[in-house]
Amino acid sequence: MTGIVGAAPAAAPRYALALHGGAGWDAAELTPEQDRAVRASLESALRLGTRVLDQGGTSLDCVEAVVRCLEDDPLFNAGKGAAFNSKGGHELDASVMDGSTRACGAVAGVRTVRHPVSLARLVMLRTKHVLLVGDGAEEFATEMGVERVENSWFDTPHRYEMWRKAVEATGSGTVGCVARDRQGNLAAATSTGGLTNKKYGRVGDSPVIGAGTYADNATCAVSCTGTGEEFIRHSIAKDVSLLMAYRDFSVGQAVDEVVLRRLRPDDGGVIAVAHDGSIAMGFNTPGMARAAADSEGRFEVGIGP
Amino acid sequence: MTGIVGAAPAAAPRYALALHGGAGWDAAELTPEQDRAVRASLESALRLGTRVLDQGGTSLDCVEAVVRCLEDDPLFNAGKGAAFNSKGGHELDASVMDGSTRACGAVAGVRTVRHPVSLARLVMLRTKHVLLVGDGAEEFATEMGVERVENSWFDTPHRYEMWRKAVEATGSGTVGCVARDRQGNLAAATSTGGLTNKKYGRVGDSPVIGAGTYADNATCAVSCTGTGEEFIRHSIAKDVSLLMAYRDFSVGQAVDEVVLRRLRPDDGGVIAVAHDGSIAMGFNTPGMARAAADSEGRFEVGIGP
Repeated sequence: MTGIVGAAPAAAPRYALALHGGAGWDAAELTPEQDRAVRASLESALRLGTRVLDQGGTSLDCVEAVVRCLEDDPLFNAGKGAAFNSKGGHELDASVMDGSTRACGAVAGVRTVRHPVSLARLVMLRTKHVLLVGDGAEEFATEMGVERVENSWFDTPHRYEMWRKAVEATGSGTVGCVARDRQGNLAAATSTGGLTNKKYGRVGDSPVIGAGTYADNATCAVSCTGTGEEFIRHSIAKDVSLLMAYRDFSVGQAVDEVVLRRLRPDDGGVIAVAHDGSIAMGFNTPGMARAAADSEGRFEVGIGP
Repeated sequence: MTGIVGAAPAAAPRYALALHGGAGWDAAELTPEQDRAVRASLESALRLGTRVLDQGGTSLDCVEAVVRCLEDDPLFNAGKGAAFNSKGGHELDASVMDGSTRACGAVAGVRTVRHPVSLARLVMLRTKHVLLVGDGAEEFATEMGVERVENSWFDTPHRYEMWRKAVEATGSGTVGCVARDRQGNLAAATSTGGLTNKKYGRVGDSPVIGAGTYADNATCAVSCTGTGEEFIRHSIAKDVSLLMAYRDFSVGQAVDEVVLRRLRPDDGGVIAVAHDGSIAMGFNTPGMARAAADSEGRFEVGIGP
């Protein structure tokens, strides 16, 4: 089953954002209570991001704030609530990209950083590098003085584990956000705990610029979720951007193309916001936790098709 | 200064390959003796790759064999001779991609693996993952039983250090190879010790599929060298492939476009072989150690423009 939401807005919005909480959600499998809880979390993050943009904040501040909020929410597989790797611990990956300069930053395999997305932003701002991994990323976190937690802090209580079993069986609860601010600048961010029971040291698409995250003011900002290896293999986020740049696809057509023609069924989903503020959200899984809003009054949350 | 070698061969070759030993070489700075030594190394690796393809070997076997050979050569910044990071040790990155299936594998931040490119190939063949980093990649190396060395084994004697100073000041001595075999299958591989004095945990473009390495039978196989962060920011290897797919560029035009219009002057270089066996090698540095051969008798080695 596939959901594509790619229509251009009637009036060009002054700002727009979309977010996701992973493509592993099957709305049909959720109890009414669970469904309400996921929607409430998405709505609260959407409200936060909308407020940042409405008050004139940058798209970069917006995507970082939204992803931090989702990282703290144990419902999603990022930050608190991150999946367990094959050693029973947690390794977190995140990235962020500024579409106005194409500056970008990412971290992979961090173990004690409460908000990996913020460390990714510091890699972008404070180093000449793009990607720091493992112990080196941890050391950088110490240099930067970001908030640290014990690795076990990312554990979630049994009830959440039970809850999330169905989700993890079908995909990921990776989180991400894309935004266009009033100045017309785009930004994207993605954060994840990775695959449950993943091999120690495995890195998926979330911290890979061009695979799980991309942003370019000339085209769009993109964040992906799903079977990371497939997103890397096809450089999915970059492909969305270049379908717009090289083939004049709309953002909806571009997302449609990668979700339906590059990825395999059940691989995952993609959210994107274009330079003109139009939003596309596509997935080839039974559901994707997602939300979108813009300055023209759009404000919606969804899980199923 | 820029060198672009992108002409299509007169007859479509049955096989073709190109390799590089980094874009940090300034031919004008080398003594005649140094120039001869670099050319001899390139020629010997080219001869090895040509023999693999001539005997009907696969493009994947060819790129692995060539990159292993360059990894063992202390002249280049990959394997033996890898750059020192900011802690005085070595962390190596490599990747490989099969254009016929788009299967790919990569490792980053390995410290004791003699041939990182072969470990990358094992990630591709033996795991469901694409990228393993740090301790997890080391553990996987143990599982696979690949050849290990002490981290200090990658150190090179003083005379090599002196020699390589000029190179490292201007760029990298990353190595890579792209090939098309008699069956028409493409493959690419890249291996590096990364930037001299790089921050501990820093990962460049070499292990990032879509940035430093890409292969797709429908378009081309690509390997990059230079300021890794810029290659990640622009997903250079994938861009070359999509310029051919979406805009019908020849491989020479596509390499030209990314080297001259995406990258900044002095960022580095790109080698690529197209589905039809034509070869392109472009760089915007004073030189790139490189070599190319095909079944129609082409056999050439170069450093300067």
